[in-house]
Amino acid sequence: MIRTKQATRTMSASAPDSDQSLAARLHDLLTDGRQVTLAAAESCTGGTIAHRITRNAGSSAYFLGSVVAYANLVKRDVLGVPEAILDSPGAVSEPCARAMAEGVRQLVGADLAVSTTGIAGPAGGTGRKPVGLVYIALATRERTVVEEHRFAGDRQAVIEAATDQALALLVATLVSPGSP
Amino acid sequence: MIRTKQATRTMSASAPDSDQSLAARLHDLLTDGRQVTLAAAESCTGGTIAHRITRNAGSSAYFLGSVVAYANLVKRDVLGVPEAILDSPGAVSEPCARAMAEGVRQLVGADLAVSTTGIAGPAGGTGRKPVGLVYIALATRERTVVEEHRFAGDRQAVIEAATDQALALLVATLVSPGSP
Repeated sequence: MIRTKQATRTMSASAPDSDQSLAARLHDLLTDGRQVTLAAAESCTGGTIAHRITRNAGSSAYFLGSVVAYANLVKRDVLGVPEAILDSPGAVSEPCARAMAEGVRQLVGADLAVSTTGIAGPAGGTGRKPVGLVYIALATRERTVVEEHRFAGDRQAVIEAATDQALALLVATLVSPGSP
Repeated sequence: MIRTKQATRTMSASAPDSDQSLAARLHDLLTDGRQVTLAAAESCTGGTIAHRITRNAGSSAYFLGSVVAYANLVKRDVLGVPEAILDSPGAVSEPCARAMAEGVRQLVGADLAVSTTGIAGPAGGTGRKPVGLVYIALATRERTVVEEHRFAGDRQAVIEAATDQALALLVATLVSPGSP
């Protein structure tokens, strides 16, 4: 399942560490008595998802960890992303996001895992894969969804917007009917 | 080798994402032509080291990735920290910091790796292991050093101070004689 969304929200590069409302909402959902654990596999967000989640005191009750897979060899050797995916369609792709989320979920034994892979810029963009293109996946025990986003703004804006969206996807999953 | 340092710098909990000067200095050192790669294994800093490094455009040239090992099972199963260390002296200890740094360095094949494990608080502190106690290790191919710190302040202050110190340790290693 691929969802495609356009996101054009921009944020100032000098903005502080974004707002904590999404991570706080996630925290509230995961400390209300349910036993759900989280993991993340982060490429373009570079640890920012984990950074935001762990700012909440008590997040160790549900957050198991994150693999910041900046290099492709970490995606392959630690997360188990197949070499064939990294060759083509490449690291910034729907199959890679999917494999990252499923890989880290299994690696650490979490109930839910989110992943990000994209081009934060300012370099690295191409005509087909411009700066701001980010794939975000969420894997549960039953299924994996992948979203394609095109975020506007500079490097910091793309990182923060992708982090926001990954946290929002976790929140949406947890409040949906039949959630873990 | 264990160094013990007291650090009492405090930061406001509402401070923005700390300053980027240490990460920028690190970036300059690693993009001056040397081929040195970095990794991190983060417990109490929760991804903040990776977050700060990857804010720099072009950091993918040297930063391979980070394992945010919040749960002990991630320290054991992904980083290879021996169960015996996690049992005693425990995750917040010099041997655990050492094993985390050495483990992630080997896992991703980096030249240098830094690790953090400590008690960010506000809960989890004990008489022998108070809030603010953080072990920071740095592993090269030749040796591993571990520092013991006691940072003052609230959760955010401890996280930011430990991140600063980990980045400072990387910088100090790179500018020392005989550095990688």
